[in-house]
Amino acid sequence: MIYADNAATTKMSKAAIEAMLPYMDEVYGNPSSLYSFGQDAKEALENARARIAACIGCDAREVTFTSGGSEADNQAIITAAHLGARKGKKHIISTAFEHHAVLHTLDKLKKEGFEVTLLDVHDTGAVTAEEVLAAVREDTCLVTIMYANNEIGTIQPIAEIGAALKDKDVIFHTDAVQAAGHLHIDVKEQNIDMLSISAHKFHGPKGIGVLYTRTGIRLETIISGGAQERGKRAGTENIPAIMGMAKALEDAVANIDANASRLSALRDRLIEGLDKIPYGELNGNNDNRLPSNVNFCFEGIEGESLLLLLDDKGICASSGSACTSGSLDPSHVLLAIGRPHEVAHGSLRLSLGEDTTEEDVDYIIEAVTDVVTYLRNMSPFWRDLTTGKREHVFAE
Amino acid sequence: MIYADNAATTKMSKAAIEAMLPYMDEVYGNPSSLYSFGQDAKEALENARARIAACIGCDAREVTFTSGGSEADNQAIITAAHLGARKGKKHIISTAFEHHAVLHTLDKLKKEGFEVTLLDVHDTGAVTAEEVLAAVREDTCLVTIMYANNEIGTIQPIAEIGAALKDKDVIFHTDAVQAAGHLHIDVKEQNIDMLSISAHKFHGPKGIGVLYTRTGIRLETIISGGAQERGKRAGTENIPAIMGMAKALEDAVANIDANASRLSALRDRLIEGLDKIPYGELNGNNDNRLPSNVNFCFEGIEGESLLLLLDDKGICASSGSACTSGSLDPSHVLLAIGRPHEVAHGSLRLSLGEDTTEEDVDYIIEAVTDVVTYLRNMSPFWRDLTTGKREHVFAE
Repeated sequence: MIYADNAATTKMSKAAIEAMLPYMDEVYGNPSSLYSFGQDAKEALENARARIAACIGCDAREVTFTSGGSEADNQAIITAAHLGARKGKKHIISTAFEHHAVLHTLDKLKKEGFEVTLLDVHDTGAVTAEEVLAAVREDTCLVTIMYANNEIGTIQPIAEIGAALKDKDVIFHTDAVQAAGHLHIDVKEQNIDMLSISAHKFHGPKGIGVLYTRTGIRLETIISGGAQERGKRAGTENIPAIMGMAKALEDAVANIDANASRLSALRDRLIEGLDKIPYGELNGNNDNRLPSNVNFCFEGIEGESLLLLLDDKGICASSGSACTSGSLDPSHVLLAIGRPHEVAHGSLRLSLGEDTTEEDVDYIIEAVTDVVTYLRNMSPFWRDLTTGKREHVFAE
Repeated sequence: MIYADNAATTKMSKAAIEAMLPYMDEVYGNPSSLYSFGQDAKEALENARARIAACIGCDAREVTFTSGGSEADNQAIITAAHLGARKGKKHIISTAFEHHAVLHTLDKLKKEGFEVTLLDVHDTGAVTAEEVLAAVREDTCLVTIMYANNEIGTIQPIAEIGAALKDKDVIFHTDAVQAAGHLHIDVKEQNIDMLSISAHKFHGPKGIGVLYTRTGIRLETIISGGAQERGKRAGTENIPAIMGMAKALEDAVANIDANASRLSALRDRLIEGLDKIPYGELNGNNDNRLPSNVNFCFEGIEGESLLLLLDDKGICASSGSACTSGSLDPSHVLLAIGRPHEVAHGSLRLSLGEDTTEEDVDYIIEAVTDVVTYLRNMSPFWRDLTTGKREHVFAE
């Protein structure tokens, strides 16, 4: 099997698993306890917090543990919006191709009277800092723009946006779920106020994440109860997962450049190979793209059939975000970069990982080429296109 | 070390750990994926859901996975309240000694204009079904009463309350975090509409829980994003933890009677021993009490000193809920059963577990007796009491 869906989730590393295990049945005490056995757990928790903080350039006390990226996004956006509302500022800036954890939270806020500007991400799959700055109004309280897109892998100019917003009375949040462990993050240098992380995207455990919140921003609690996480996130701390996450993030950050250079070579080889398939096109710009991400649209293809036939050939791939795969709608990300509906349906995301080899890439190229050809040969829609009854979207 | 704080958290069982491991680095696919490797994970997820449903007597589709008991409590209460509000019903019934995950969520709702009646739990630590029924008004939308109290272990008459509310247009939720795996639960027979569970209280993993929601009640999403959990709880499913929880719950339920009889014998032995300490009293009724729970108040004692000295003797115990241990306030649970402030400060919770032996119990009795005597001898407050300058609360 070739697993090419690392943007959906990753295999846990042995090191991360090893880091979790002792906290399951050895140091399993509740860190809120007074006795030394509980304090051992507390010490581990604070050690992990400090290590994670070091990975993203913040202070340990600016790290709040959540159940994952979605919760972190929800809490960040709700916090910033409600802080804004207290000052009469109810305008939010985001982009049209954010993850649904962001977009659906913005939808909730619209019902509370917030106004949301979704910036265009163009066919390149990126905004510019100038566009963000131009959209800022007197009543803007929050800018939330993802670090790297989960479907097409395009990277936003986060440091530039941070610098542009630095002197504005605006909270800058970024959903870094696809970026953490894969791209350099330094929240102070990049002037980021809030940032969301999910461990299972970098070989850590599922069900655990981080919300970095700059000192001075008072988090709003969305899960109320006990006094854990300075009263900002109730629930017994998931120390095994937190220890696994800390280890996975440290390892990912330590190897970030080596992994990036190896993966981007594989990515470029894959893009080059798939680019030879006629009437197909890479989604998003390749100049500024996650080293692991390849995303193509092929005319005349149904994404679902493509995935099922690739599965038969032992390739795990997706058409877009796993989170929306139950839906029949075309990807909102591909629509946001201007793909027409019928083409957005024929998308293929391949996200490479630490196990991916050159042989895997070559096998994928061959398999995708075969499957696309096969599916097109079966399709009446494709016969229309080749006989010129309909117009091609992409050049050959 | 004698771990007597199983109400705070438990050691994971080997079986639960074994059940998790394959889903970390073997069947690690995202269950929302189309390919068969993801579908294997999906199958495991639905298998776990069905097994958990069988443990509590509901349908699999009535099981929603959450990040734990606190999130489940929050989501249940917010759902029921807002469903009620749509019908103009904004009155909620609960008790004064619920977990803070319930009480703090009720506080949030009060700010939205809800009225909350907190029923008295008397010195027995229990409400009656008649009292609940008498409190129901035309505009009552929700009754939320915990199954068993986390500090004093008293068990509420859940089936009777369910029966009393059966024909009322009221949602009946119970926080069963301390009960699941320890007491028999059958949500259909007991007429429970919503119920919260946390895995780490029955030797399962931390960071995972269940919200049972009767078919017909439309859950309100509190973590928005992807379409996981039928769109009611966003975030990549934490399958390793879910598999661990399913195994732990099944094992706990399979051994529920044997464990209960063994533990209640140990509990009674411990109560008998501690009862010989003068000027102390068991908190809550022992007729209807979790088999694992012992909770005493001792006059003239500071809970914190007691715990630290017991820790020196290798005993892990708590004064109340771990979730509130950062606080200097006396336990709201002990105040709710009528303990005066100064006595509530001197409380000791011992919660036994599968590893607890008779020798452990005898050792605890000796240690607590020694420590209480030692602390009283040091205390000027105690000298006042023994010289009759102040009045004793408890008889010798």
